[in-house]
Amino acid sequence: MLLCDIGNTSYHFLSEFDSFKKDVKRFDPSEVKHKIYYISVNKKVEVKLKNLPNWIEISSHLDKTKYYKTMGVDRMMALEAIESGIIIDAGSAITVDVKRGGVFEGGFIYAGVSAMSQTYKKISNALDYEFNFDIDLEKLPKNSQDAITYGYLKTLYCEVVSHKMEIILTGGDAQKFTKIFKEARVDEHLVFKGMQKIIFNFY
Amino acid sequence: MLLCDIGNTSYHFLSEFDSFKKDVKRFDPSEVKHKIYYISVNKKVEVKLKNLPNWIEISSHLDKTKYYKTMGVDRMMALEAIESGIIIDAGSAITVDVKRGGVFEGGFIYAGVSAMSQTYKKISNALDYEFNFDIDLEKLPKNSQDAITYGYLKTLYCEVVSHKMEIILTGGDAQKFTKIFKEARVDEHLVFKGMQKIIFNFY
Repeated sequence: MLLCDIGNTSYHFLSEFDSFKKDVKRFDPSEVKHKIYYISVNKKVEVKLKNLPNWIEISSHLDKTKYYKTMGVDRMMALEAIESGIIIDAGSAITVDVKRGGVFEGGFIYAGVSAMSQTYKKISNALDYEFNFDIDLEKLPKNSQDAITYGYLKTLYCEVVSHKMEIILTGGDAQKFTKIFKEARVDEHLVFKGMQKIIFNFY
Repeated sequence: MLLCDIGNTSYHFLSEFDSFKKDVKRFDPSEVKHKIYYISVNKKVEVKLKNLPNWIEISSHLDKTKYYKTMGVDRMMALEAIESGIIIDAGSAITVDVKRGGVFEGGFIYAGVSAMSQTYKKISNALDYEFNFDIDLEKLPKNSQDAITYGYLKTLYCEVVSHKMEIILTGGDAQKFTKIFKEARVDEHLVFKGMQKIIFNFY
């Protein structure tokens, strides 16, 4: 069985043996002849997949009334995988979602590392630095690199820990964020776990 | 006496009678024949001003050892105007600086409203919303507009109020941010007040 979580920048596959990614712009989904259970937040890709019978969209089996209308199905799937906690899915966007005792309480969207790095650079060349994930967030910065890093990461950290819940990190940049959220558990397959639950119930 | 604070996007003037802005790309500084005391974080503009004798750069009189090397002089000037507090200067970038008992403790840089709005839009068309400054930040969002607004504003709010100091709002977007920082004092002339102190001492 092949699972696929399609985001804004890549197809993320999970097979029995491993997980791998394909670039949204370059990968041709008709190349795959196996049966694939997928979810997608990428409208352009969805159009291509509609005519490929081996690509099976599974989010229709989700009880979406628990969530909200324009919410990405990847966020819903990750939430399906847990009972309680705050999920940080760090990809091109960073989604942060809270579930308590089986109930979705809400969530927010932050900019991903690459997007945010571009943003600072665009504001001014004087802010063209890489983020310093080894920063000490206990101390207010006194240099430009840490000033943008703190602006990007401490603000997020402050809000996330205020919920006083178990933090679960997932998404392509999860490992990077373990340096900031030292108390977090990493589960790179959280979305797939939610998808597996649905598949187990309906297929 | 004419004062001018030059940022990434505009010349901000203060005369005896009013304050006004000119676009950095369109305004020709040689048009002004009066004596102007200025500071600038805009390298391109600085080159133009070097040959105009009526434009007098005043940041050289500042004791910069209190701050850090690559810090914008506008931030320093705003800090010169207060004894204690946390200054939010909301322009194309948002700078947040802390001063306690006359001592600069450090500061950070966040993306401005316009830059951040572009960032979400670039990540995905599904995130192309205006920020909702009337949002209730006490509640986790359950719609896309509030999800990006909360991501952008609650994170900043959380970090700023954690310092438990008087908040002073300045910069072009100061009024917008009063909706989020309801406890803040607005002082749109904070940078000019710092500049006036320097001028009073040295000219």
